[in-house]
Amino acid sequence: MLNIKKPALLLNRDICKRNIRAMAAKAKAQNVIFRPHFKTHQSAAIGNWFREAGVIAITVSSVSMAHYFASHGWKEITIAFPANHLEIDEINQLASKINLNLLIESEETATFFKDMLTKECGFFIKIDTGYHRTGIAASNVPLINKVLQASKSPKLRFEGFLTHSGNAYHAHDKQELIAIQQHASENLLRLKEHFHPQYPDIILSVGDTPSCSQLPIAPGINEIRPGNFVFFDVMQFALGSCRLEDIAVALVCPVAAMHPDRQEAIIYGGAVHLSKEQTLLPPDPKPIYGLAISWDGKNWDTANLLGKVSSLSQEHGILSLTQQGCNLKPGNLVAVLPVHSCLTGNLMRKYLTLDGEIIETMNT
Amino acid sequence: MLNIKKPALLLNRDICKRNIRAMAAKAKAQNVIFRPHFKTHQSAAIGNWFREAGVIAITVSSVSMAHYFASHGWKEITIAFPANHLEIDEINQLASKINLNLLIESEETATFFKDMLTKECGFFIKIDTGYHRTGIAASNVPLINKVLQASKSPKLRFEGFLTHSGNAYHAHDKQELIAIQQHASENLLRLKEHFHPQYPDIILSVGDTPSCSQLPIAPGINEIRPGNFVFFDVMQFALGSCRLEDIAVALVCPVAAMHPDRQEAIIYGGAVHLSKEQTLLPPDPKPIYGLAISWDGKNWDTANLLGKVSSLSQEHGILSLTQQGCNLKPGNLVAVLPVHSCLTGNLMRKYLTLDGEIIETMNT
Repeated sequence: MLNIKKPALLLNRDICKRNIRAMAAKAKAQNVIFRPHFKTHQSAAIGNWFREAGVIAITVSSVSMAHYFASHGWKEITIAFPANHLEIDEINQLASKINLNLLIESEETATFFKDMLTKECGFFIKIDTGYHRTGIAASNVPLINKVLQASKSPKLRFEGFLTHSGNAYHAHDKQELIAIQQHASENLLRLKEHFHPQYPDIILSVGDTPSCSQLPIAPGINEIRPGNFVFFDVMQFALGSCRLEDIAVALVCPVAAMHPDRQEAIIYGGAVHLSKEQTLLPPDPKPIYGLAISWDGKNWDTANLLGKVSSLSQEHGILSLTQQGCNLKPGNLVAVLPVHSCLTGNLMRKYLTLDGEIIETMNT
Repeated sequence: MLNIKKPALLLNRDICKRNIRAMAAKAKAQNVIFRPHFKTHQSAAIGNWFREAGVIAITVSSVSMAHYFASHGWKEITIAFPANHLEIDEINQLASKINLNLLIESEETATFFKDMLTKECGFFIKIDTGYHRTGIAASNVPLINKVLQASKSPKLRFEGFLTHSGNAYHAHDKQELIAIQQHASENLLRLKEHFHPQYPDIILSVGDTPSCSQLPIAPGINEIRPGNFVFFDVMQFALGSCRLEDIAVALVCPVAAMHPDRQEAIIYGGAVHLSKEQTLLPPDPKPIYGLAISWDGKNWDTANLLGKVSSLSQEHGILSLTQQGCNLKPGNLVAVLPVHSCLTGNLMRKYLTLDGEIIETMNT
């Protein structure tokens, strides 16, 4: 029995390792490089579980995160964020120790790093294949040519094209997800073909968990970089990427007050624990912030739904209770499956395994 | 000039101290107890600025936060969250050192603490005056009587009735805000009158920043507990509680990429820095996550709007740029006024003053 008194982020190690093994096996079976994104867990210890599954190359979202994982022995790191000019010193330090890949998407950035790098780095050109967050439009070959021109230097080694189909998170059904994946891979393949004469060995890298979980890897893709699948969460469940039983983390929270007249409970567990990320879970038309299920002191039980987190303030969560949930009392504990495990993990900064081990992160 | 390379939460000490002095002066002028909520800043150093303004009693939102501030010399603390049964040991430790007030809103909780407290505590009964998050409905005198009955013990000293008009955050205009405040204070005053024969000295405590900033304190109210006003933020600006020039914190972020074709920039500054709290800023019909203004290395300038944060992912923010903002380049810095300074402060865990001092918090 774990002695939990205030919100704690529990981690089921078996589920987590199963998720890692499944994605590693899929990449191996389809013969693509598996370069998982470590921004979800941010933990050296969990990183070691990936090593057990044969992973040697990783993705991170910041220079700080690259430094943390480099200090824990990772030698192949892509920073999947437009390279930050202001951290040139930290990037040079990293590049002197590991095989580092940057993301470049403008002439200015290419020129800056060509001039300022003291060690060789790889780089990907970030391609926008429909998400429209960042990257060069796949059709904009003139700009890609300019970036390649501006980056010509022994310090910058062109690795290939990289995209993140974040629009996969807005797919309404599997057909739409397939269409998004197909659109992205066709665009990347067209670029690869176009640049083949000058760059015959470049790789095509894709990233999102919904596509990587639900679909076969698209033909011609060389590398996948999913991250969230390590824990999954209610958003991925809503998207059809996982079952509730595949979610590896849950925030265990004390019940603080009951309001049976409106079938609500107040839990000690709010925006500073779960984050304010919300998702829709049809047919419910209202967004939710988590799903509360039972917790017996040793395990959570996805078959025993107690309520939906319908509202969050800084430390309070409101549960909209099921019939079962109405039996709760102040001082009981519930487990909340988070909507976005990356943000919940980042806020909680450490994990507690079901056998009571504390797993630290770069933020602990 | 501050040397900022990655997202940093800047604090303008002068604005912050001015906000503190103004609220302290208002409380003094209206002869009410000023018991500010420290969940916004969570910092012992900023707590000292309140001491300079004469504050001796404070409000916090968790037992952990009460321990932190007690260890920094605060002797009068109300934990404005339904008392957590599971932290009884930590509550007893606190009650042996300071004057601690708890919140009780059920017979079960009253009975539990009557039985389990080893030291005397004060308690408030949490009253719901229209927010419907938690608390006993002001009309439910029978339940209030039961709680008072169940708490009869030398260990539990009834201090009064406490409400948080969180519904003030949904007021569409000042008239509506006045109506919310009036409804809350009338309900509390009716209770005070009802219980006057048995409890002649109880106090009435109210809390929210919109009412405390915008309106005179309602007649008969004895204590105010606003928190957010110490920093203010874009949400309070949208509600009319402050000017942009009264916002004391800004997240300084590097520009990572420009997309002039769609008048957008990508900043290094995302949900793990700002939080995913959003607000409406009419007449714009779309919610925003922050306002980007210029930063010259020494100060931010609210008169120079560069863009709105229209979307956030884990580390990326998308700026929807003004004409002025379209001149930005990768490697520039912008200052983002946060939508909800409490959540941004909690995520960033420390502040950097304009003169380069690092101000720690309980989470640093």
